[in-house]
Amino acid sequence: MNERKALDTAKIEQIQRDRKEAHKFFTDKSKVYRIFTELEEKTFQDGSLSKKHKELIAVGISLVNSCESCLEWHIKQALDAGATLEEVIEALEVGLEMGIGPTTVTNRFAMKVLKHYLGDNI
Amino acid sequence: MNERKALDTAKIEQIQRDRKEAHKFFTDKSKVYRIFTELEEKTFQDGSLSKKHKELIAVGISLVNSCESCLEWHIKQALDAGATLEEVIEALEVGLEMGIGPTTVTNRFAMKVLKHYLGDNI
Amino acid sequence: MNERKALDTAKIEQIQRDRKEAHKFFTDKSKVYRIFTELEEKTFQDGSLSKKHKELIAVGISLVNSCESCLEWHIKQALDAGATLEEVIEALEVGLEMGIGPTTVTNRFAMKVLKHYLGDNI
Amino acid sequence: MNERKALDTAKIEQIQRDRKEAHKFFTDKSKVYRIFTELEEKTFQDGSLSKKHKELIAVGISLVNSCESCLEWHIKQALDAGATLEEVIEALEVGLEMGIGPTTVTNRFAMKVLKHYLGDNI
Amino acid sequence: MNERKALDTAKIEQIQRDRKEAHKFFTDKSKVYRIFTELEEKTFQDGSLSKKHKELIAVGISLVNSCESCLEWHIKQALDAGATLEEVIEALEVGLEMGIGPTTVTNRFAMKVLKHYLGDNI
Amino acid sequence: MNERKALDTAKIEQIQRDRKEAHKFFTDKSKVYRIFTELEEKTFQDGSLSKKHKELIAVGISLVNSCESCLEWHIKQALDAGATLEEVIEALEVGLEMGIGPTTVTNRFAMKVLKHYLGDNI
Repeated sequence: MNERKALDTAKIEQIQRDRKEAHKFFTDKSKVYRIFTELEEKTFQDGSLSKKHKELIAVGISLVNSCESCLEWHIKQALDAGATLEEVIEALEVGLEMGIGPTTVTNRFAMKVLKHYLGDNI
Repeated sequence: MNERKALDTAKIEQIQRDRKEAHKFFTDKSKVYRIFTELEEKTFQDGSLSKKHKELIAVGISLVNSCESCLEWHIKQALDAGATLEEVIEALEVGLEMGIGPTTVTNRFAMKVLKHYLGDNI
Repeated sequence: MNERKALDTAKIEQIQRDRKEAHKFFTDKSKVYRIFTELEEKTFQDGSLSKKHKELIAVGISLVNSCESCLEWHIKQALDAGATLEEVIEALEVGLEMGIGPTTVTNRFAMKVLKHYLGDNI
Repeated sequence: MNERKALDTAKIEQIQRDRKEAHKFFTDKSKVYRIFTELEEKTFQDGSLSKKHKELIAVGISLVNSCESCLEWHIKQALDAGATLEEVIEALEVGLEMGIGPTTVTNRFAMKVLKHYLGDNI
Repeated sequence: MNERKALDTAKIEQIQRDRKEAHKFFTDKSKVYRIFTELEEKTFQDGSLSKKHKELIAVGISLVNSCESCLEWHIKQALDAGATLEEVIEALEVGLEMGIGPTTVTNRFAMKVLKHYLGDNI
Repeated sequence: MNERKALDTAKIEQIQRDRKEAHKFFTDKSKVYRIFTELEEKTFQDGSLSKKHKELIAVGISLVNSCESCLEWHIKQALDAGATLEEVIEALEVGLEMGIGPTTVTNRFAMKVLKHYLGDNI
């Protein structure tokens, strides 16, 4: 059990390191990437919708896209912006409704991210 | 111009008729579809997230999935649940950020749906 | 009603004409396409699985891929190979279970194809 | 060689454990997930199509969806329902015909699952 | 035959009008879209790769994405940048190799675009 | 750092071994796969487009398909056919423009492949 927990943590930390390293690499080498960074920043600013609700939209899309790294990022951003566990679960439910089969697989990683940030006893 | 407007309206109305006819067909013939209907209903009920914010998540996913009929449905549901034009646009922006190229194409239909329900002068 | 039926038939017939015209065009111009034609033929021959069951697999995949033309082709092939309406419906159910949201939309066209080939009163 | 075999087994066993843990988590927390469980169960019951042929449809879809966990599950279910190695291979062939490039990658994991359940000498 | 040709032309012209109308709508309403416009422009400038070869990459991706409007745009851009019919066909072949089934369907529209811009007797 | 580098190398080498093992397995067992092998070979031969530019199209598609193994293969083929780092980066930029969100994740692996073949100091 503890060994599995360590594996899950290692996977999440590897995603975080890879993200950081690639961000530096492409910021240095690609002007298109640099514009994307600005686009991303503007997308998730508070607007008519709050950052929290925008991040929950992104959580639903990440699930449908089977993108584990996106899930790791947007669940964390949603939590930091004040989303509760229940709100994240309901965003995942919308994703499940719209892409059933494969989303139940990607949901497993969403669970791990939630436990990583909110503790195992949620 | 009037002819084009008529074409857009005809397309939206055909989506609505097809949806209704197929709903009747599969409700009659498929027990799996009947369970899906229940699943869909439960997904979009008010919960920790309001129906409005759930529908906006679905708008973002519909865009990334390039699903015009889904867009027609979830934009209408979001508007009926109180979403403003600006909120729908921002949900579409999150979708655009997460699936750029093709989403700019599908966004064209999102615009038509918004004009269909909110008027051409928005 | 008759007008809508005519529209559905026109759409199916356009798919059939486009398929034929493009088949001629790419057979003439692309050696890769010609090899694909052979690959396709070998895939759907009777083997350990009968052609009927292979076509039903293709029906499920077509639904998940939101590919209306593929649905039109593989439903027809499945029917010609002896599949019943009930068997096609169950193949569509597997597709729905594995990719819900958009599949309920694409299912509408599957219904039209079934009515086109089996009559409106199925 | 033995080390690689151990890695493949470890990956398959991790998929199985993750599936079980997430099933418990979402069954507890999500009413939408609970309805999905019922939907899944009904989908794969014997009907006009046998469970075996339904699982083979799911194998083809899993390949096209690049979903390794889905492949692990549905190949096992197909084998348990009486499918032969040759029948699974032919279901994978239909998937390959309908989504070539990426499916040849996911096919590698399908091979590992087959060797895991049928032995290395198949 | 002439009637079908007129239908194909009408479809292509509708794509062009929709693109223009939506571009105006989202440029007006969405800052994220405005940044995307800049990102798009920078992506396709001559660089280490010529605009022609970049557009041919986009043709391959458009095929795999089943995006007809993208195909219409990028085939036209590639032709304008000096690509020959044979080069476009070979870019489509790479797309076909990497996503067979549905790409053979979307290829039909690629053919229509080529005939639209290069004449029916290519 | 050295440990992480070792992990990246191990992942790339595992992809290479899996590819070889599965190639042998399916060549032996599947006639459809054998035809695919021929189709693949013909696709990437020098033609009106050089092998290098065809491989760069495949790099863009691999990114949009989130297919790490495809990226590993086609980046290596492109480099072997004379592509420069800058040309690979620009092919990745086209991919990013056409599938933004998830492509920034898959881009991380593209970076690792480039460092694996061109050295860490690129």
